[in-house]
Amino acid sequence: MNRLSINQYSVRQLTLVELVEECRETGIGVLGLWRDKVSSAGSDRARQLLRDAGISVSSLCRGGFFPYSTDEELVRTTADNRKAVDEAAEIGSPLLVLVCGGIAAAGLERSREMVLEGIANLAPYARDHGVKLGIEPLHPMFAADRSVISTLEQANDLADHFSPDTVGVIVDTYHVWWDPNVYREIQRAGDRILGFHMSDWLAPPPHFLNGRGLMGDGFVEFKQIAAAVNRAGYAGPIEVEIFNEELWALPGPQALALIKSRFQAVLA
Amino acid sequence: MNRLSINQYSVRQLTLVELVEECRETGIGVLGLWRDKVSSAGSDRARQLLRDAGISVSSLCRGGFFPYSTDEELVRTTADNRKAVDEAAEIGSPLLVLVCGGIAAAGLERSREMVLEGIANLAPYARDHGVKLGIEPLHPMFAADRSVISTLEQANDLADHFSPDTVGVIVDTYHVWWDPNVYREIQRAGDRILGFHMSDWLAPPPHFLNGRGLMGDGFVEFKQIAAAVNRAGYAGPIEVEIFNEELWALPGPQALALIKSRFQAVLA
Repeated sequence: MNRLSINQYSVRQLTLVELVEECRETGIGVLGLWRDKVSSAGSDRARQLLRDAGISVSSLCRGGFFPYSTDEELVRTTADNRKAVDEAAEIGSPLLVLVCGGIAAAGLERSREMVLEGIANLAPYARDHGVKLGIEPLHPMFAADRSVISTLEQANDLADHFSPDTVGVIVDTYHVWWDPNVYREIQRAGDRILGFHMSDWLAPPPHFLNGRGLMGDGFVEFKQIAAAVNRAGYAGPIEVEIFNEELWALPGPQALALIKSRFQAVLA
Repeated sequence: MNRLSINQYSVRQLTLVELVEECRETGIGVLGLWRDKVSSAGSDRARQLLRDAGISVSSLCRGGFFPYSTDEELVRTTADNRKAVDEAAEIGSPLLVLVCGGIAAAGLERSREMVLEGIANLAPYARDHGVKLGIEPLHPMFAADRSVISTLEQANDLADHFSPDTVGVIVDTYHVWWDPNVYREIQRAGDRILGFHMSDWLAPPPHFLNGRGLMGDGFVEFKQIAAAVNRAGYAGPIEVEIFNEELWALPGPQALALIKSRFQAVLA
């Protein structure tokens, strides 16, 4: 239980102030944050809130979207990614999650190269600010519009270009559970695993973006994947990140209680 | 154009009789058929219709769904798969498409083993009836409920257990376009490629099952994939298989004309 981190978007019905208060009351010590939510609360105030409540940050979502179709887009994305690193450093997040971006005008292959170039461009800046970059492969159903990096194998191939002190990968059960090579690639990732996210796969998902399941409601084999991630050497927070309309419709405290009990149940 | 095959479900608004008539008028010489549609028309009558019109069959959909949770289910599936082979032979289809099936009670890994066992069980029967079995990997978003075989690499690994005269793979752009290893695996498949299907990936798909796009409306790089499939040695029919509510809402002849023009356009 002390490894549980709540990704802020799992309970987006709560403001940061409300979420921190709930966590303090129920003994949750780690949060995964989103830039828009931190920005609404105000970065300084957010940091103070977390410090007062003794809550640490597992990650900040998100940077990335590296493929570009125009020079203007490249300039804009580069600036925004540096800003994301700044914000991670300010809020005390050791990790910036990278959602690498979809297909630019130049096509799939070139877009994948742009991801490598983008990370190479950002990595020194991130290192100088004490923030690690976590490449999160997204489910192949997001390959066109969100991430041309679809498998952990690709993420590992990318991370291989950099020092593990700066760039690593994030294993999210929702995105990788189906992959026949996932256990091989978790082992390969080893100390490059910077984050471990959980949500379940419903069949079919009730919504393309916001149809992730609460652990135990779907097909993901959590215990097996968690064991592999542990064996690979990852001992950090396990972030529950569920985008689900039904969960968002519940009162925040009830949603949190549900997440906690399911987290325990699927790993027990 | 002489490689164009129309999968019957792309224009499911047409009966088999209507479809054959349209094909005869517009010079389409190959069809991909579905068991339910053939069965409604009557197998003997269907065969006669096709013969009279000079239309050949590229494939029959479908067998598979090998993973089972009970012995009864295994008995039922085994019988149904043999029936599917019989029907393919009766209608003159050289190929039965295998949609391998989702996760059974025993879990993902065991389900994948059941697919191999199921194909091994069916292959001699298929060979004796002159019907080849085509393993079609389905997009990972169908891994839980339709196919635990999600990549061409898996399909090739399965096919490796059998003679290429009996078991091969089907490359469907909708299912494999996103795969970073797809070109490697197309080359590896070589003469094991028994079928090539086309539809486009819309982002996001408007419907989980029936949201496939007309070629040119989405992100698939048809020319590149087709070139790779040709290079690998496949020279057979290219089957357009689009499940799309909008296409189905059109008058059949209009839908067929649209498919023909897009087929030409994306390969030109």
